Amino acid sequence: MNPYKELKDKAYEANLKLVKHKLVIYTFGNVSASDNSKGVFAIKPSGVSYGKLKAGDMVVVDFENNVVEGKLKPSSDTKTHAILYKNFSGIGGVAHTHSTYATAWAQAVKPIPILGTTHADLLPQEVPCTKVMSDEQIKGDYEKATGSQILEVFKNISYEDVKMTLVACHGPFTWGATAEEAVYNSVMLEDLAKSVFLTLKINPQITPIKKALIQKHYNRKHGKGSYYGQK
Amino acid sequence: MNPYKELKDKAYEANLKLVKHKLVIYTFGNVSASDNSKGVFAIKPSGVSYGKLKAGDMVVVDFENNVVEGKLKPSSDTKTHAILYKNFSGIGGVAHTHSTYATAWAQAVKPIPILGTTHADLLPQEVPCTKVMSDEQIKGDYEKATGSQILEVFKNISYEDVKMTLVACHGPFTWGATAEEAVYNSVMLEDLAKSVFLTLKINPQITPIKKALIQKHYNRKHGKGSYYGQK
Amino acid sequence: MNPYKELKDKAYEANLKLVKHKLVIYTFGNVSASDNSKGVFAIKPSGVSYGKLKAGDMVVVDFENNVVEGKLKPSSDTKTHAILYKNFSGIGGVAHTHSTYATAWAQAVKPIPILGTTHADLLPQEVPCTKVMSDEQIKGDYEKATGSQILEVFKNISYEDVKMTLVACHGPFTWGATAEEAVYNSVMLEDLAKSVFLTLKINPQITPIKKALIQKHYNRKHGKGSYYGQK
Amino acid sequence: MNPYKELKDKAYEANLKLVKHKLVIYTFGNVSASDNSKGVFAIKPSGVSYGKLKAGDMVVVDFENNVVEGKLKPSSDTKTHAILYKNFSGIGGVAHTHSTYATAWAQAVKPIPILGTTHADLLPQEVPCTKVMSDEQIKGDYEKATGSQILEVFKNISYEDVKMTLVACHGPFTWGATAEEAVYNSVMLEDLAKSVFLTLKINPQITPIKKALIQKHYNRKHGKGSYYGQK
Repeated sequence: MNPYKELKDKAYEANLKLVKHKLVIYTFGNVSASDNSKGVFAIKPSGVSYGKLKAGDMVVVDFENNVVEGKLKPSSDTKTHAILYKNFSGIGGVAHTHSTYATAWAQAVKPIPILGTTHADLLPQEVPCTKVMSDEQIKGDYEKATGSQILEVFKNISYEDVKMTLVACHGPFTWGATAEEAVYNSVMLEDLAKSVFLTLKINPQITPIKKALIQKHYNRKHGKGSYYGQK
Repeated sequence: MNPYKELKDKAYEANLKLVKHKLVIYTFGNVSASDNSKGVFAIKPSGVSYGKLKAGDMVVVDFENNVVEGKLKPSSDTKTHAILYKNFSGIGGVAHTHSTYATAWAQAVKPIPILGTTHADLLPQEVPCTKVMSDEQIKGDYEKATGSQILEVFKNISYEDVKMTLVACHGPFTWGATAEEAVYNSVMLEDLAKSVFLTLKINPQITPIKKALIQKHYNRKHGKGSYYGQK
Repeated sequence: MNPYKELKDKAYEANLKLVKHKLVIYTFGNVSASDNSKGVFAIKPSGVSYGKLKAGDMVVVDFENNVVEGKLKPSSDTKTHAILYKNFSGIGGVAHTHSTYATAWAQAVKPIPILGTTHADLLPQEVPCTKVMSDEQIKGDYEKATGSQILEVFKNISYEDVKMTLVACHGPFTWGATAEEAVYNSVMLEDLAKSVFLTLKINPQITPIKKALIQKHYNRKHGKGSYYGQK
Repeated sequence: MNPYKELKDKAYEANLKLVKHKLVIYTFGNVSASDNSKGVFAIKPSGVSYGKLKAGDMVVVDFENNVVEGKLKPSSDTKTHAILYKNFSGIGGVAHTHSTYATAWAQAVKPIPILGTTHADLLPQEVPCTKVMSDEQIKGDYEKATGSQILEVFKNISYEDVKMTLVACHGPFTWGATAEEAVYNSVMLEDLAKSVFLTLKINPQITPIKKALIQKHYNRKHGKGSYYGQK
């Protein structure tokens, strides 16, 4: 049996969830799932539409971007996934979508301010946005540079607290302990992106919520003092 | 047989209606149903996704926030529900959602003005919004403070006429004679929140509708002179 | 057999189409179908939700607002329908919805300007909006006054060319040769209302399209020189 | 057997995809598929609703607008399709919709600026918009003039790179190597139109993305250096 079957199945299931949550159309977007013990991840093949995708189509790649198993070419964004796995130790999934509102914020080159408790339930600060790439970066190893732009953002932010970013002029990337969590974060990011958009249209003068409120909600769900859920 | 079976079934059915009306995603939002003769209510367990929820998972809690029956932890918003049941005598259901437009108004910390007859069919004034909590309230008994903020709003407003409020920076709470009516009010509030948002984008100078029109429509549907429906 | 069975079936089918096109929720909105040879129309009963509605529930009313057949109370908007049938000779259906964008324009008390050919395919001018009612009208025979406000608008406009209007602070009414056409006009009005909303957000300086273009498109589909469709 | 059966089937399937992607309602919109070896195309009949459409209803027309086969009248936009096939050598499909956001841009008489990589994946510049027609053009051979307005735009733009345009005051036209690709371009255009609308609402000062980024993304998917997909 294919030693990567389970990993490929996970990646496949997670890709289908993007469709279910209406975050992708045609071939846009991709999710990967990693097996950190083996130093590899399974990712959607490039340019295959979700309607025709099969679990066996997933491509297995290592963290240096070498194809380990699979007949198809991996997603054109594979290098970006590889850099995230290599640098964000312990994450198990990465998702990239062109979801409507999150992409609009990325294209606007604006971070998404934290204006409510739904946001604070998820992450304890604004959703960051990378800088616009230089011409040199674009003309060079572009997909690797996308990863570098993300790493730059997370020099001073914990990737374990903030499991998402906007890539300027492009769209959102999210991650998590599993591919399923990465997709969850993509869904929630789209929800936040729309909610904050509307909030600012209703009240352009509104300012970010209090630090105490951010901490209260974030700590209800995360860390040792958390009391949300059944744990 | 479980003496709370019927109550738990009602709460369960009402929670599923939130999903049907697309007011909640994942584990956000919760509905409870009360049995006022027994002084208890059944509420959604904390952090359980709607897809996996079963009627038997509902947790029965009294109006002082003590768990009476159930194996799971009740919703993290249970204290807020308990305060409403304790103070809004006669209500039989409470719903809390993170629905898109109502949440945006709550995050904008703005009441929803009454600009049309659909609104007046439902309630005879703007949808109120609580004050922003103080740091002390947030750091103290937060979920209880959420309830207190709501009670503060209803010092001068009848909770029987206005069965909904926005909680600043958070989202909407609605209630009613039954859990089903609480959900109905959540659905209608989301509809109003969107409708008023669009109205103000078309005509920012528009002012609230006339008192006579509010009374006409509200009284068509409520009170002894009502002539809407089959009663 | 009930002599109004066919008429009631038509009205029932048309009411269900409002649901199918997502123009109504719960009990909001109503459609009627008239038999002009008998001087009667069948209309949705008041306050019955679409999910529970049956064809036999339709109520038959004459153009003076007297119930002719049916066990239930007719829609609270029945008088408004009656006035339209009485005065707009030859129409066979009337629809009233609280559809999102059309209602927002009505609440904004603004006619919908004619900014594109989809609009001109349907009607040769802006969608009119009634005046706001006086307190006297509201406190008097309100539903009749709603009809009078509409007639006022159509003193100088042909109800055969313009089969729709916004009622200020309330929502849209549409009509047509049949109940089915009235629903068609409600669906198209909602489409126009959204389209014009977006157009003005993209370009607030845009002005109505040329008279020649209005005439070209309107006459392609209506009148003796029309060449659209299979006639 | 009908020598045009295969062509009519293609056109029929493509028309149904407009419905599936929610780009059309009722009878608005039309797709055609051409057989360039025979110099003909199959197009939707005029004014037939999508629900009742059959493959055999498609009408076969030559590039001079003469009906070659079919019992029904072709779409009222047939002349516009014919001009595009005659002048845009090698295209195999044309689609015309009244999709919400693309139509709003057309009605606003504004090209859609290129603000993100999704856009650059599809075409290397803004989506153009034709000029507003003169009264003479409107009153003359209107549908042919619509085609001429489009040709005017493509005097200085390659129709092979930019497979779409907005027709001022009207709506979008798209094309491609096949009818299926024309529909794909209509779907993607609607997505872009919404995305750019939102981006400008978030940040009205945003400017088009860098030329280097446009070239990088466009060339990833198109031309001899492309590396996207499985080719």
